[in-house]
Amino acid sequence: VKLRLEYDGARFAGWQWQKNARTVQAELEEAIRRLTGTFSRVTGASRTDAGVHAEGQVANFRTETTLEAARLPSALNAHLPADVAVLEAGDAAEDFHAQRAAVSKLYRYRILSTRVRRPLRAGRVLQVRRALDEQAMRACAERLAGRHDFGAFASERGRYRSTVRTVMRSELLRSGDELHFLIEADGFLYNMVRALVGTLLEAGAGKLGADAFGGLLEGRDRSVAGPTAPAHGLCLVRVNYEPAAAQARASGHEVSER
Amino acid sequence: VKLRLEYDGARFAGWQWQKNARTVQAELEEAIRRLTGTFSRVTGASRTDAGVHAEGQVANFRTETTLEAARLPSALNAHLPADVAVLEAGDAAEDFHAQRAAVSKLYRYRILSTRVRRPLRAGRVLQVRRALDEQAMRACAERLAGRHDFGAFASERGRYRSTVRTVMRSELLRSGDELHFLIEADGFLYNMVRALVGTLLEAGAGKLGADAFGGLLEGRDRSVAGPTAPAHGLCLVRVNYEPAAAQARASGHEVSER
Repeated sequence: VKLRLEYDGARFAGWQWQKNARTVQAELEEAIRRLTGTFSRVTGASRTDAGVHAEGQVANFRTETTLEAARLPSALNAHLPADVAVLEAGDAAEDFHAQRAAVSKLYRYRILSTRVRRPLRAGRVLQVRRALDEQAMRACAERLAGRHDFGAFASERGRYRSTVRTVMRSELLRSGDELHFLIEADGFLYNMVRALVGTLLEAGAGKLGADAFGGLLEGRDRSVAGPTAPAHGLCLVRVNYEPAAAQARASGHEVSER
Repeated sequence: VKLRLEYDGARFAGWQWQKNARTVQAELEEAIRRLTGTFSRVTGASRTDAGVHAEGQVANFRTETTLEAARLPSALNAHLPADVAVLEAGDAAEDFHAQRAAVSKLYRYRILSTRVRRPLRAGRVLQVRRALDEQAMRACAERLAGRHDFGAFASERGRYRSTVRTVMRSELLRSGDELHFLIEADGFLYNMVRALVGTLLEAGAGKLGADAFGGLLEGRDRSVAGPTAPAHGLCLVRVNYEPAAAQARASGHEVSER
């Protein structure tokens, strides 16, 4: 079964199961166990960190339940806490793996540059008290498109065989009084989006030009990358997969993913 | 001083001071006392109920402080909890009264018609599991414009000398996957917006036609008004005043309100 999920990351210690911590994976596995009576391991497309939100996380699990996929969202939501919900469910190919099959993921980071706090957006948007040079930030954001070594923007570089990733989309959009950084890539390193946002904010504060930013990408000067921006401004918007037909052909199965 | 405020109503027992309850007025009076060293009574334009949000509440108070009005938002916010903030402050005419001087108030009620919960909008929008007849709701909403007796939509009719109010704007707008009911009037009775929304939802469920709704407004059939919709979908968007010049003329003072 393939699920699409939304959650408010504020009170979760992230996606992945941890001993003695409240995680989305654990809540979901518990809901499935309560509904079906048996334990199923859940695999998520993205291991979002503590505090990171999702409006389009994708996960998969195997089950023997006879419940139709279309009825799973309501059935599982009845067992899930208020800050996480299954939005959609569908039958998936036998070997579907939410993380490995993902072609790309899209994240959004919300920034609000105002001197005063906005309580109705607290926990959803990063408030920056200083004015930001939007043009400088946009110039840097646009440099990210394409294939680059993002080693300068990874918190734990050592764990990767390669830190090269391909960015299909990277833009800074104005949405009312907010700035939204949208980035879609074939993969993300640990803390990569938040490190990129921290660096874009340095550019917005006039501390870093587009050329120095470009240098970071070419691995020339890794010391100038900015700090990691807080988790609460970040949201996993969407995970993209090959169209179902192509995927079924590739795996040799009949089409069964909706 | 005239203030513009934003708050998340979820953890407040409403605007107005109450013994042993957390209210916006009490938090604000405490912040002013801590900042200036003396108590000032704060008057709000609207006594929003428990759970109702505001992005444009207006309040006034008198103070001897020598702090410039422009510095008050940051100074007060330092003493206010995370779920309320002063967005703007300005000097007001000596006799300015946030509630009595208000020409009109604009409220927004957010409705989301989906079978599944949306955790990222929990507490901000009313989720309705059934499909809604948007056209029927719109026809009813549009009937509200003008001068009407809203007695059928007041929770405590007895406390009003007159239950006649003038609605300048009443519309149902689609905003992405949400329906927003926007209503601006020269005054609102207790629970009036929420009773109107409850009745619009009955129309949306096919239980009430536009003519029966019109009958309610003419006071002919008060028993058919719908239930009071929950507080958390409601937000006080804006309070309108006469332009400063007109107000100063009327009160005989020089212009001092920003």
